[in-house]
Amino acid sequence: MQTGAMITSMNPRTGAPAGEELEETSPEEVAARCREAAQAAAGLEALGRHGRARMLQAMADALEARRQEAVALADLETALGGARLEGELTRTTFQLRFFAEVLEDGAYLEATIDHAGPSPMGPRPDLRRLLRPLGPVAVFGASNFPFAFSVPGGDTASALAAGCPVVVKGHEAHPRTSLLCAEALAEGAARSGAGEHAVAVVLGVEAGRRLVLDPSIAGVGFTGSLAGGRLLHELAATRPSPIPFYGELGALNALIVCPGAAAQRPEEIAAGLSGSFTLGAGQFCTKPGLALVPAGPAGDALVAALAAEVASKPSQAMLSARVANGFLDGSGRLRQVASSRPLAEGRPPDSSEGWWSTPLLLEVGPGALEGTVLEECFGPVLVLVRYASGEQLLQLVDRLGPALAAAVHAEVRTGPDGLGGEDASLAADLLERLTRKVGRIVWNGYPTGVAVSWAMHHGGPYPATTDPLHSSVGASAIRRWLRPVAYQDVPEALLPPEVRDELPAGERLLRRVDGRTRLA
Amino acid sequence: MQTGAMITSMNPRTGAPAGEELEETSPEEVAARCREAAQAAAGLEALGRHGRARMLQAMADALEARRQEAVALADLETALGGARLEGELTRTTFQLRFFAEVLEDGAYLEATIDHAGPSPMGPRPDLRRLLRPLGPVAVFGASNFPFAFSVPGGDTASALAAGCPVVVKGHEAHPRTSLLCAEALAEGAARSGAGEHAVAVVLGVEAGRRLVLDPSIAGVGFTGSLAGGRLLHELAATRPSPIPFYGELGALNALIVCPGAAAQRPEEIAAGLSGSFTLGAGQFCTKPGLALVPAGPAGDALVAALAAEVASKPSQAMLSARVANGFLDGSGRLRQVASSRPLAEGRPPDSSEGWWSTPLLLEVGPGALEGTVLEECFGPVLVLVRYASGEQLLQLVDRLGPALAAAVHAEVRTGPDGLGGEDASLAADLLERLTRKVGRIVWNGYPTGVAVSWAMHHGGPYPATTDPLHSSVGASAIRRWLRPVAYQDVPEALLPPEVRDELPAGERLLRRVDGRTRLA
Repeated sequence: MQTGAMITSMNPRTGAPAGEELEETSPEEVAARCREAAQAAAGLEALGRHGRARMLQAMADALEARRQEAVALADLETALGGARLEGELTRTTFQLRFFAEVLEDGAYLEATIDHAGPSPMGPRPDLRRLLRPLGPVAVFGASNFPFAFSVPGGDTASALAAGCPVVVKGHEAHPRTSLLCAEALAEGAARSGAGEHAVAVVLGVEAGRRLVLDPSIAGVGFTGSLAGGRLLHELAATRPSPIPFYGELGALNALIVCPGAAAQRPEEIAAGLSGSFTLGAGQFCTKPGLALVPAGPAGDALVAALAAEVASKPSQAMLSARVANGFLDGSGRLRQVASSRPLAEGRPPDSSEGWWSTPLLLEVGPGALEGTVLEECFGPVLVLVRYASGEQLLQLVDRLGPALAAAVHAEVRTGPDGLGGEDASLAADLLERLTRKVGRIVWNGYPTGVAVSWAMHHGGPYPATTDPLHSSVGASAIRRWLRPVAYQDVPEALLPPEVRDELPAGERLLRRVDGRTRLA
Repeated sequence: MQTGAMITSMNPRTGAPAGEELEETSPEEVAARCREAAQAAAGLEALGRHGRARMLQAMADALEARRQEAVALADLETALGGARLEGELTRTTFQLRFFAEVLEDGAYLEATIDHAGPSPMGPRPDLRRLLRPLGPVAVFGASNFPFAFSVPGGDTASALAAGCPVVVKGHEAHPRTSLLCAEALAEGAARSGAGEHAVAVVLGVEAGRRLVLDPSIAGVGFTGSLAGGRLLHELAATRPSPIPFYGELGALNALIVCPGAAAQRPEEIAAGLSGSFTLGAGQFCTKPGLALVPAGPAGDALVAALAAEVASKPSQAMLSARVANGFLDGSGRLRQVASSRPLAEGRPPDSSEGWWSTPLLLEVGPGALEGTVLEECFGPVLVLVRYASGEQLLQLVDRLGPALAAAVHAEVRTGPDGLGGEDASLAADLLERLTRKVGRIVWNGYPTGVAVSWAMHHGGPYPATTDPLHSSVGASAIRRWLRPVAYQDVPEALLPPEVRDELPAGERLLRRVDGRTRLA
C-alpha cells in the first residue's frame, strides 16, 4: 500500500474532522480504474437496454436500502440538513429509475432506417443509424449535491444508461459519502449481472486531472467552479486525443419583478425569493443572485418585505472552508461596490467554530450592473437593483450575461384576444431577450428546484455551461454519452436489433423509417 | 479601401493564376461581418421553420440558375473536372432542399411538453422544452468540395436551417467560386425575405482565426487538415467565452477483404477499390487508405488485378500546390517504410506544369502497421497489408486508430438459421471491433460517396472529428447549431408555437407530451 497525500472528511458545523483520513488515489490506481472501466464496457453493452434498465433499478434499490446511513453521513460531511438530504436522495433514486424509463422507451437511440432507393445523385445504399455508447466516462461530483450531482447523480445515471462505465472523481467535501454511494451502486450492478467495474471512485485533485487525461476516458461530466472547469475543459480539448467535456460551471441567475407583479404580490414574492436565495445556504447553481425590482411604492413594499424576511433567516454552515471563504470574499467585493448598500442580514451563527454564512441582501444602483455585480457569488447573497421604467429594465437585461435560468414575475392574463394584464407587453419583451441568454425561463416562480423530467433543461451559454447544446438534467442528458454509427448495406443479421426491419417481439420503439417517424 | 495581404486564385492544371488577385478580409471587415450576422439572427428566426424552408429552396434555385458558370469556375480553380463538379452541385442543391424537408418535418426541434403534476419530490411545474438557434455560426470551407462542403455546403445549409446566420471562411484554393456561391445564396435569401446578411464570406487564414475569436460567433464548423483543425479547436476552447467546435479532420479509413470475398470477387473488388482511392485524385476524407487482403492465391489474384487497374489510371491535378506537396511528402514517407514495396503506379502526367499526382499502390508487411502507415495520406495512395489468418486480421484491426468509415468485404448468406457463408463468423467479429472505432461501416462497398439522408452519419472519434457525437452530413447535422431552452410555467400565449398545447392549424409535428411521443 502506498502512502500518498491524504484527504480528511470534515464537519462544516464544527470545522473538525468527521472521520479517519482517506488516501488520495495514486496515479497507478487512476490508470487501473480507467483500464477496468474500459474492460467493463462490453459487459454493459451486452446487458442491452432492458438489462441496463434493471441495473439502474437495482442501484436505486441498493441506495434506498442504505438511506439512513447515507443521509446521516452526508449531513455530517456537508451540513445540508437531514430534511434536504432525504429529499435529495429521493430525487437521486427517482433519477436512476427515470433513466430506466428512458431506456425502456428507447427513442433516445434515434434509430433511423433509410432503405436503398434512387436519389438525384444516383442509387442510394441501405443506411441504418443509431446511437452507441461513447466509452468510459469520467464524472466529477459536485460539492453542493452529495447525492443528486455526485457519485450516484445525473451524470452517472445517464452515462450508465447509455452503456458507458463511469469513473467518478469524488468531491473532497464528502469523500466518505462518495465511497458509501459507490458501494451501493456496485451492489446494484452486481445484482443485475453488470460487471463489478461499471462504477468506480477516485479521490484527489491530481487524480481528477489524470482521469481527464487517461486515454481510456471518452468524455467528461463536470459540475463545479468556473476556474476548475476551465482548466479541465482546456485539458480535455488539448489532450493528444481531445474528448467532449460537459462543464456545468455557474453564472448569475436573474429574477425580474415587473411592476404589476410587485404591486399585486409583494409579500408572496418576498417570501419566495428569500427562501430561494438562502436555500441550502445559497449553494445552488440555480440560485437567484440578482433581482430587478421596480422603483416607487410597489417596489418599496416588496423590498421592505424582503428585508424583513432576510433578517429573520438563520446563518447556515457552508459545505467547506473553501466555499465559506469564497463567499466571504465574494460578498465582501459586493459590499465594496461604490453604490452598494446592505438592506438586511440574517441572524448571526450560534457557534464561533465551523464555516458559517449569514444571509445578506444588498442594493446597488443601476449603473453598477457590470463587473463584480454580474459575477456569480456562491452563497446566500442577493443583489437588488431598482429600475425606473420598462425601458430601463430592458436595457439592464441587455447587460446581463448568459446564465442557467432567469425568472420573470409578471401580471398577465390570457384572454380570448390574446395576452392582457398590466405586464403583458413588458413580459413578452423580456422573454424574447432572456431566451437568447439562458437555458430555462421560470415564470412567476424561483429557479432553485430543477425537476427531473423529459422537458427539463439545465444548461446555458458559457459560463453557465461549457457546452450549451446539452443538459445534465432530464432525459436528454443521455445524449452526451452516445455517438452515432451508420451501417451501410450491412446484412440484417449483423445489425443491432433496434435497426433491423423487424424488431424483437414486444419491442416498441420510435424510429424514423424512410423519412417518416413511426412507433414500431 | 485598405491594401492588405492578397490571395490569388490558381489553376492547378498549369500552376498559373486563374484570375485577378483578391484582397484578404481585414480584421475590421471580419468584425463587421460578425456584427451584421448577429443582427441578422432575429430576421432568420422570425421567418420561422416554413419561411426558412422556402429560403433554402430559393438558395438552391439561385445556385442552380448559375450552374454553368459555377461549375466552370470551380473546375478552373480546383481541377476536379466538369462531371464530378456537376454531380457535386446537384448534391449541394439537393442538400439545401433536404434541410428544407427537415424544417417542414420539425421533429428536429425535440418539442417536449410535461404538464404540471405530482412527483416523488412534490408537485412538478409545467415544463416545455424545444431547441432554439445557437447564434451566428462560422463555417470553414473545405478545399476538396468547392460546393458540397464549402460556402453553400452542409454546414451552411444546416446552420441556416437551424436559424443561425453564417459567416464562411472561404478556402484559398477556390476563392472566386466561394464568392460566386455566396452571391447566389444572398440572392436566394433576398428573394425569400431573409435579411441580406444571412450569409457572408471572409477570405484569408488570419481572417479565419479572428472569426473563431469573434464574440458574436457561437459555434464553428470546420472541414480541413488535422493541424489547422487542432489550432482552431484549441482557440475555440480557450477563448474567453468557449464555443462548440466541430472539426472534421481526417483519418485512415480501412477496407478489409475477407478470404471468401477475395476468392469470389477479385476483379470486382480490384475495380471498385482502385476507383475509390483514386476518385478526385484521392482527395476525399473518406478515401480508403489501407486495404487488408488475405495472403495466398485468392489474395494474390485480387492484388494482381488491383495493380493492373492502378497502372491504367491517369495522373490527376491536385487542388493546390500545398496539397500536392503534402501528397509527395506523405507518399514519400510511405515508400521509406522498411518493408514497403511499390506494386503499381498510374500513368505519368502529360504536363510538367501544374500540381499533378500519380496513383500509387504500395504493400507493407503486417509488422509495419504503426506510425506512418496508420496516418492519413491525402491523395491517391493505397497501402496493402496481407494477413495470414483470421486471427491475425483481428489483431491488425485492433491496431487501427479511429476513423470516419471502415469497409468490410465478406461472403455471407442470411438463411433461416441465421448467418451462413464462408466469412460469417469473421465478419461478425470485425463488425464488433470496427463499430467501436468508426462512424460508418460500409458492407461490400467503398467508403467514398456519402449519401445525404436521414440515416447517414459522417463522423468518428478523434482524429476523424473533434466531436464524435455529431455529424456534418445528414439530417442530424442541424443539431450542432441548436441549444435547448425550457419554459417553466410560462403562459401559452408567450410560448413558441411548437410547444403550445394546440399547434397552429395544419401543423404536424412529432412531440413528446407527458412522456409519450406523438405526431400532432
